[in-house]
Amino acid sequence: MWRDLAAIGRYRETGGYRRYAWTGADAECRAWFRAQAEARELAYEVDRNGNQWAWLGDPEAGGAVVTGSHLDSVPDGGAFDGPLGVVSSFAALDELRRRGAVPGKPLAVANFGDEEGARFGLACVGSRLTAGQLDPGRARELRDGDGVTLARAMEAAGHDPERIGADTERLSRIGAFVELHVEQGRALDLLGHPVGVASAIWPHGRWRFDFRGEANHAGTTGLEDRRDPMLTYANTVLAARKKARLAGALATFGKVAVEPGAVNAIASLVRGWLDSRAPDEDTLTALVDAIEQAARERGVRDGVEVSVARESFTPVVEFAHELRDRIAALVTADAPVPVLATGAGHDAGILAAAVPTAMLFVRNPTGVSHSPAESAAEDDCLAGVTALADVLEGLACR
Amino acid sequence: MWRDLAAIGRYRETGGYRRYAWTGADAECRAWFRAQAEARELAYEVDRNGNQWAWLGDPEAGGAVVTGSHLDSVPDGGAFDGPLGVVSSFAALDELRRRGAVPGKPLAVANFGDEEGARFGLACVGSRLTAGQLDPGRARELRDGDGVTLARAMEAAGHDPERIGADTERLSRIGAFVELHVEQGRALDLLGHPVGVASAIWPHGRWRFDFRGEANHAGTTGLEDRRDPMLTYANTVLAARKKARLAGALATFGKVAVEPGAVNAIASLVRGWLDSRAPDEDTLTALVDAIEQAARERGVRDGVEVSVARESFTPVVEFAHELRDRIAALVTADAPVPVLATGAGHDAGILAAAVPTAMLFVRNPTGVSHSPAESAAEDDCLAGVTALADVLEGLACR
Repeated sequence: MWRDLAAIGRYRETGGYRRYAWTGADAECRAWFRAQAEARELAYEVDRNGNQWAWLGDPEAGGAVVTGSHLDSVPDGGAFDGPLGVVSSFAALDELRRRGAVPGKPLAVANFGDEEGARFGLACVGSRLTAGQLDPGRARELRDGDGVTLARAMEAAGHDPERIGADTERLSRIGAFVELHVEQGRALDLLGHPVGVASAIWPHGRWRFDFRGEANHAGTTGLEDRRDPMLTYANTVLAARKKARLAGALATFGKVAVEPGAVNAIASLVRGWLDSRAPDEDTLTALVDAIEQAARERGVRDGVEVSVARESFTPVVEFAHELRDRIAALVTADAPVPVLATGAGHDAGILAAAVPTAMLFVRNPTGVSHSPAESAAEDDCLAGVTALADVLEGLACR
Repeated sequence: MWRDLAAIGRYRETGGYRRYAWTGADAECRAWFRAQAEARELAYEVDRNGNQWAWLGDPEAGGAVVTGSHLDSVPDGGAFDGPLGVVSSFAALDELRRRGAVPGKPLAVANFGDEEGARFGLACVGSRLTAGQLDPGRARELRDGDGVTLARAMEAAGHDPERIGADTERLSRIGAFVELHVEQGRALDLLGHPVGVASAIWPHGRWRFDFRGEANHAGTTGLEDRRDPMLTYANTVLAARKKARLAGALATFGKVAVEPGAVNAIASLVRGWLDSRAPDEDTLTALVDAIEQAARERGVRDGVEVSVARESFTPVVEFAHELRDRIAALVTADAPVPVLATGAGHDAGILAAAVPTAMLFVRNPTGVSHSPAESAAEDDCLAGVTALADVLEGLACR
């Protein structure tokens, strides 16, 4: 199962995955999902927002226990972020059958579309639409780097963009959603546990910083005559790091675009995207305000205009305590399972507002994620499957 | 003449020009040049390196006086850098005819190909090849951002890339080359003169700085676990500015590329291009060494590997003193004409190694260049044409 999926959308040059929403690689991943469902005689369906579902039992019976994750990737992403959750979900269903467990509630595996937001710049589009957290009109107008709208990309992939939107009927069938995911930090490794349970997702967001100066010739314009936005950008990158450290939070500039972008021209516009996360919303807001303030102060010095636009914001997500404690008890074998917060956004974080939701993490020995170096040991992945099977059995079969 | 050219390769969105070598916009500019030559019954030819020539008189008579510049642009460049020299050359020939001047030597207008290097990353490809300063094999392998080689781009535009290379026979026909160019700084404006003469071109070059860290998840990787090359890049941008100021020189980062380039991923690679120029070569070398040293020191702190590759280097060019003084005398009407050094590279700087070469500058009231805001007053452009006609008449008709 893992091997079939491993070849899709992988770039030989980097060893990383480029599985962007509604592309050819995405279609191949989706075909793989469908084949897995059909091989197990699960009822396959695609919902109005393009998310895939594989049902064991009657979806309309209510109180369904759903597990799953996503199959798309960041640019040059690793093999585990997303796919480990989907593969483990199918494997956990196989394990339940081996155990002879008889579900008293419907079970389903889900693949949520466009979780990473790598193509259209907004994460968790599939789950956001379903949960009613994203306006369908706005979603249809999202554009990729080539100017293609999400609506056109969906159409090209054979999905009707006019149907997208909140799907409360579907959500009302779900009693619990559990997402298994590779850990994206080193907490489990430091604690010496293969599996953990999520307590919360830090509030996080994306802000676009536009630094506008004046294009000019790099070889003839005196330093004092320049309005060079690259300087303001550079200063802001360093200020963000320093202020994040002081706040016990995270701030990252990982994407930048420059106009005109010629070696011998001073930039007219530098656009940098800030990703920032903190344990609570007040800290996050104060941090981003402080970074913006530093950018504006330096901008005055450089003759550069600074404008900041919040592109997305996800409030803190506290996973349902009752479900979390029940899951922690179900997967505790020899030692109590660690319960930990994470800075990463997930479909589970979106769905938590609508249905009782929980997450399992599988140890990542280096903590590296969103990179080809992302990894998890085979034994740990199998421990994850066992834990997920325990959870599904505990929630659906007893 | 100016109006026909003004529409070619202009982008409505920015108002800037995108006339890159061997593209459709370039072909249109070249067709314009040919039409201008033919309208004046000048003998039109394209040399082995793709440079265009329009001859008045027998090219093989020897001692030719050649004027011209280039028609290509930087990304979103202005209307004057390059085209002003070519348009003024044709206009100066018209002026000579009006004056009834009878040339005793052949005269020519030239359009040198790919001066800006916007597409293939190396400036002055047409004149470098002609002067034997660029290996034809290396030139053919230059690649644009899409991976297209110069050889393939030339072929697609109908030019045989196997013919490129040094053209000593053609250079041996030239007695003097004079390039008129819009000034790219504010010296003439500060001095109150419409036209100036070049003394020298500062040594200048391009260096590629590669900062290699480790891609990772921006939301889950602790600051202390990161190897973020964006920090090292940012610090280097600021260090370059400071060290250039102390050296009385110029240093600019105007182009940057990031991998993977996702908002929620710490970069694995940041590649920044440094453009640097100084009054003399020792100052330039010491400055770039100091910037590299600063980058490496910060790299150690960030866990980031730094490597630096020199992509091009042009030594100082002192224009032939005799020709320069003769030209200064020819264009001096009421007051002595200013003689000034420039930090910008030009085809004249390349050809100066092979033939006696000079430059005229036309006042640029804001000093802005390589930008849609680049400008020159109509009166100053006409003063430039008059000065160029005076020079051609003085060199070829007396």
